[in-house]
Amino acid sequence: MIGGGRGAFIGAVHRIVAVMDGNAELVAGCFSASAENSRLTGQDLLLDPARVYGTYTEMVKAEAKMPAGQRLDFVVIVTPNHEHFPPAKLFLEAGFNVVCDKPATLNLAEAKKLRAIVKKTKKIFVLTHNYTGNPMVKQARELVQTGKLGKIRKVVVEYPQGWLWKRLETTGHKQASWRADPKKTGAACCLGDIGTHAENLARYITGLRIESLCADLTTFVPGRLLEDDANILVRFVGGAKGVLHASQISIGEENNLNIRVYGDKAGLEWHQEHPNELIVKYPDRPKEIWRRGNSYVGAAAKKFTRIPFGHPEGYLEAFANVYLEAFRAIEAEVTGKPQPKDLDFPTIEDGVIGMTFIETAVKSGKAGAKWMKFSND
Amino acid sequence: MIGGGRGAFIGAVHRIVAVMDGNAELVAGCFSASAENSRLTGQDLLLDPARVYGTYTEMVKAEAKMPAGQRLDFVVIVTPNHEHFPPAKLFLEAGFNVVCDKPATLNLAEAKKLRAIVKKTKKIFVLTHNYTGNPMVKQARELVQTGKLGKIRKVVVEYPQGWLWKRLETTGHKQASWRADPKKTGAACCLGDIGTHAENLARYITGLRIESLCADLTTFVPGRLLEDDANILVRFVGGAKGVLHASQISIGEENNLNIRVYGDKAGLEWHQEHPNELIVKYPDRPKEIWRRGNSYVGAAAKKFTRIPFGHPEGYLEAFANVYLEAFRAIEAEVTGKPQPKDLDFPTIEDGVIGMTFIETAVKSGKAGAKWMKFSND
Amino acid sequence: MIGGGRGAFIGAVHRIVAVMDGNAELVAGCFSASAENSRLTGQDLLLDPARVYGTYTEMVKAEAKMPAGQRLDFVVIVTPNHEHFPPAKLFLEAGFNVVCDKPATLNLAEAKKLRAIVKKTKKIFVLTHNYTGNPMVKQARELVQTGKLGKIRKVVVEYPQGWLWKRLETTGHKQASWRADPKKTGAACCLGDIGTHAENLARYITGLRIESLCADLTTFVPGRLLEDDANILVRFVGGAKGVLHASQISIGEENNLNIRVYGDKAGLEWHQEHPNELIVKYPDRPKEIWRRGNSYVGAAAKKFTRIPFGHPEGYLEAFANVYLEAFRAIEAEVTGKPQPKDLDFPTIEDGVIGMTFIETAVKSGKAGAKWMKFSND
Amino acid sequence: MIGGGRGAFIGAVHRIVAVMDGNAELVAGCFSASAENSRLTGQDLLLDPARVYGTYTEMVKAEAKMPAGQRLDFVVIVTPNHEHFPPAKLFLEAGFNVVCDKPATLNLAEAKKLRAIVKKTKKIFVLTHNYTGNPMVKQARELVQTGKLGKIRKVVVEYPQGWLWKRLETTGHKQASWRADPKKTGAACCLGDIGTHAENLARYITGLRIESLCADLTTFVPGRLLEDDANILVRFVGGAKGVLHASQISIGEENNLNIRVYGDKAGLEWHQEHPNELIVKYPDRPKEIWRRGNSYVGAAAKKFTRIPFGHPEGYLEAFANVYLEAFRAIEAEVTGKPQPKDLDFPTIEDGVIGMTFIETAVKSGKAGAKWMKFSND
Repeated sequence: MIGGGRGAFIGAVHRIVAVMDGNAELVAGCFSASAENSRLTGQDLLLDPARVYGTYTEMVKAEAKMPAGQRLDFVVIVTPNHEHFPPAKLFLEAGFNVVCDKPATLNLAEAKKLRAIVKKTKKIFVLTHNYTGNPMVKQARELVQTGKLGKIRKVVVEYPQGWLWKRLETTGHKQASWRADPKKTGAACCLGDIGTHAENLARYITGLRIESLCADLTTFVPGRLLEDDANILVRFVGGAKGVLHASQISIGEENNLNIRVYGDKAGLEWHQEHPNELIVKYPDRPKEIWRRGNSYVGAAAKKFTRIPFGHPEGYLEAFANVYLEAFRAIEAEVTGKPQPKDLDFPTIEDGVIGMTFIETAVKSGKAGAKWMKFSND
Repeated sequence: MIGGGRGAFIGAVHRIVAVMDGNAELVAGCFSASAENSRLTGQDLLLDPARVYGTYTEMVKAEAKMPAGQRLDFVVIVTPNHEHFPPAKLFLEAGFNVVCDKPATLNLAEAKKLRAIVKKTKKIFVLTHNYTGNPMVKQARELVQTGKLGKIRKVVVEYPQGWLWKRLETTGHKQASWRADPKKTGAACCLGDIGTHAENLARYITGLRIESLCADLTTFVPGRLLEDDANILVRFVGGAKGVLHASQISIGEENNLNIRVYGDKAGLEWHQEHPNELIVKYPDRPKEIWRRGNSYVGAAAKKFTRIPFGHPEGYLEAFANVYLEAFRAIEAEVTGKPQPKDLDFPTIEDGVIGMTFIETAVKSGKAGAKWMKFSND
Repeated sequence: MIGGGRGAFIGAVHRIVAVMDGNAELVAGCFSASAENSRLTGQDLLLDPARVYGTYTEMVKAEAKMPAGQRLDFVVIVTPNHEHFPPAKLFLEAGFNVVCDKPATLNLAEAKKLRAIVKKTKKIFVLTHNYTGNPMVKQARELVQTGKLGKIRKVVVEYPQGWLWKRLETTGHKQASWRADPKKTGAACCLGDIGTHAENLARYITGLRIESLCADLTTFVPGRLLEDDANILVRFVGGAKGVLHASQISIGEENNLNIRVYGDKAGLEWHQEHPNELIVKYPDRPKEIWRRGNSYVGAAAKKFTRIPFGHPEGYLEAFANVYLEAFRAIEAEVTGKPQPKDLDFPTIEDGVIGMTFIETAVKSGKAGAKWMKFSND
Repeated sequence: MIGGGRGAFIGAVHRIVAVMDGNAELVAGCFSASAENSRLTGQDLLLDPARVYGTYTEMVKAEAKMPAGQRLDFVVIVTPNHEHFPPAKLFLEAGFNVVCDKPATLNLAEAKKLRAIVKKTKKIFVLTHNYTGNPMVKQARELVQTGKLGKIRKVVVEYPQGWLWKRLETTGHKQASWRADPKKTGAACCLGDIGTHAENLARYITGLRIESLCADLTTFVPGRLLEDDANILVRFVGGAKGVLHASQISIGEENNLNIRVYGDKAGLEWHQEHPNELIVKYPDRPKEIWRRGNSYVGAAAKKFTRIPFGHPEGYLEAFANVYLEAFRAIEAEVTGKPQPKDLDFPTIEDGVIGMTFIETAVKSGKAGAKWMKFSND
């Protein structure tokens, strides 16, 4: 693991979910830019001190030298955005598979470079857009794919949060301080942290690519360096329309990612804060509440369900589902078997699209919320 | 009453709500462009046949001749949009007060003319944006006005419906056929029917005027002549931002008008389909559910409450609240008393703003969803 | 109208709902035991002072003398419980139809006498168990009647309120003071006010009669003379089981009447505070939300719907539906036509069952919550 | 681990949650009464075959012989109820700590014996009433303990499920077949599986002991040997009253454990299927929604929270919280330190009370739903 030292949020999440199903074990890490924090974190985690490193450069060298059965099967990168690309490149080129938190990189150029590296090294690269790991999100996708909604007309996807309603980044709050710092987070704060999840979720469920967008970005909190609110009109390839808005200043909202999709036959609705339910709507029949774990759900939702209906699964289980798929790919890679054909996890391709989304929206916003073409290269 | 003959929807609503509190009585009407339908409707309503008219021109003449105590105190116009301005003008100039369904007129030019007529005749003109009659909408406004939300940053207002998901207007459906007909409905279908309610609700609660907007309008149903979906980015005077979207093709949505307002101190949320509740959100305290009829609600919400908490009030009661205020003004006008200073109903001024909203959004949409300045004249 | 003077709650409700659909007009009344309050209320209501009476004895005499077209078609009794039977008897025997608030009478003996009087006079007697007027309650009944739920196994019906959580009855609160006074309210406070609604609702939807019950009644508020909380186990004729609990000390509950019915094929759930929805549950398909006003609802729910889906109807509309049915019966009676065969309103038979419920539960409670047979005479 | 072989439900749950926070590792097991299933399960779990046993007698002997650092620190028992006591006794007496699924034993006599054994051996015994591990359940308890609700008056606790709505136990369904078999499950099906959770939850939150109860038990599904539905009136020591009902035939209900507690100052409500929320109700202020992970929650809820607000935690995380506390006790025991004073997990004392609950309810039910004293020995 790269990153995730004492005081970090997402590193601890990765540590729980990667081992939830007994498929992996944490054996080595460079947990912080501070060698001391790294050492202490390794100690907290009862790791062999010999495999707790002060820098990831040191780490990649040491691990690469280890014998096959003993060296890392993959590395997990959970650092701030500016420290995604450098270690990812290093480890991929040294022959390691990589699991990386989103957004893929600091900027689009890096993402495209990373795509080339992944292609060249033929290693596995997994981008943890965790929300698509939710069984009922997979159910939603299956309903779209099997034509139950008909042709998609409209998508409304929202990701309101309120935690940055005031200038938290100057109070010593670890998360806030790097997320609001352009050097570490990139060109966008709200879009990079959560807007990109919204884009990813909409695309995962509907399969639709953006054709153009018009983004009105605002920095509401005085003194903040990046946008904390984004209202975006979207036009999808093929004629569907969308509204995507994300916010970090919507007071009282916690992590209210949600999506509504309307086709010409039916509609659906899913809320991250109530992830076990999928609402399906018809023009002429009662609205249905599909719930995880029931006999009537489809194959995809079934496959990623651990416990029976009515026993709520949450954020961690969904996140662990991304790892379940990652492990199928990684295991094949490590053991030299062919890759399974039905892999279902976000890849560097999703990373490039995500970075395109962020950069296009920022460009639109800076131009005064003008419509911008979306490059699907 | 002008309009509201057999087969109409909103006329019947007005007839229930105008008399709900025992303040008015229906005594005369011209209920349809068809004299026969008008006659039959009058019969259904047990009216004196002498006061059931074939045309409103005939009606205004006959009623104007009646003695003061016997003639109409006000007329209610519930015709399709193209028949708002002509009878409104006639009756106002003949000395009658007017209650008129929204939108005010067929287009902005008419609305401005009507404003001049109202000003000149000094008669009462009430525009029935009924949703602002909801007690918990009034509570929301009071929370904003008393500073509980702080400075408003963001407004999300939605009005999704699904009833026009297919081409209902060619099937003989009365409502659909005029609402989708530009000659009767004006330049917009979705915006004129429901988008304008969304604008009105947002302005009523927040007091914010639109500065500019960018509207992406779509006609999803093949063959339809007007837009059936509208996604709009809004910038308010003073710096707040907004998202307003309305739709008639969002399958499975019934009449899901709802609004979220976020200030720099607190936020609030209200849903028309659950009108007795107002959700209030804070950065550092539990979310609160304010419910109509309780001791803790403010003066405005209390005043417009008929029955105790837990006994749900609905659409009709909220609509009747607009009439309650209208009657205070009309009674004063009829009896020659000064107008109360705390009147709370939508006026021709709201009508002009509403028509400006519709026309600006249509203009923006036709220009390919360009930003347009909003004239607050 | 008998009762419903200044300061009363339910009288005002009856006045709104009886005229909501234009089928009736209030022309006479004795609104209070205080002749002065009666006079002032009549004045508030703009009634002819000649028909505002100081006592109902006076009223029945005067009205009975009036010519057929002019005299009352029916009288509405909205007094405290001890003043139900005396005026009901008087008016029925004088040839008037009667609409009476629930519970039917002060005690079971009176209810049975009243049943005999109704039978003998052949006049219409309507008991306003208003909640059964809800369209989605009628839908629920239709689902049971058409076998969609299979054989009913279990019924859970609740009516929690919190308004009597402290000793409100000694503070001058009008409602509280008579409801907690055994002389005016009868043998039960909570059961007579709301428990009987729960019994009625369960029976209306399922058609099941109680065979025996075990009632644990409690007076939680010190000094109160009657029970303010009731927890009851129920066994229905035919083998279904039930839980019925009602409370006036459940702090924070408003008027949360709700019911769940489980059959051997499906289940359903309805909440009075969200009356436009009916939840239907299956063993092997998604839960459905049936909503008032949609094309898929059955005939009974359709018939009692005034406005389109998504425009919430509430307490008053449901109450008015009881009147709609009452008027069909009253009109037939007054005009000498045969009674319609499909009348759907609560009768004196429901009143006798309701009073049996109250008395049996009180008896059970007083015996220390022993099982008691329920007499279905 | 004893039990939890291929095809079992709760064993897999324990395996995930016991290691979720990196405090334990599965090293040995006897996973099934079938030595073959045990062997295969051990293989699935990548265990050392030498520590996968065919019987638990064999296991306790082998493990007891191992050196201190290597032998088991505790054993987890996840077998059907009849196989709780025998291995628990064996392992405790051999010096092992025990984590055991609920209910504690097959019957009350065994539970009392087990209590004596725990007392005598001074080993740790943890009973996994997992729902009390939910942070918002702990918050509820804290609100009661700090007097926010005042004196408790009424408790309504429900645990409806629908999965046994038909005779699943004869279809080869593993769970159903032992749960409905008196030899394996004990005197009660519904009460032992879920009713006991309801009793435990109510007592955990309110601290109230049952004084007497009246249980109406029913077997709805023809051919079933034990009750599948239980409706229970409860009187608590100190005067509070309660309704407790549990069901396995409530079609469409999944795992809808929920509780409402009403005091003389405030009330609260919690739903297992939406575990991140706690509803708090007042007589004179808006209802509040307390949500896990926020700054305003109390110490107990904070302590058992892994991820930030808005990222839903679920069943597994709550279950893991029981283990977190168990580990504090087990670690102290194993390392010879004094037991922490603030331990918060269900013990054998809860097991005895739970078995008393089951047996008293069964006795009441068999006597025709008579009131029975509840022994708090």
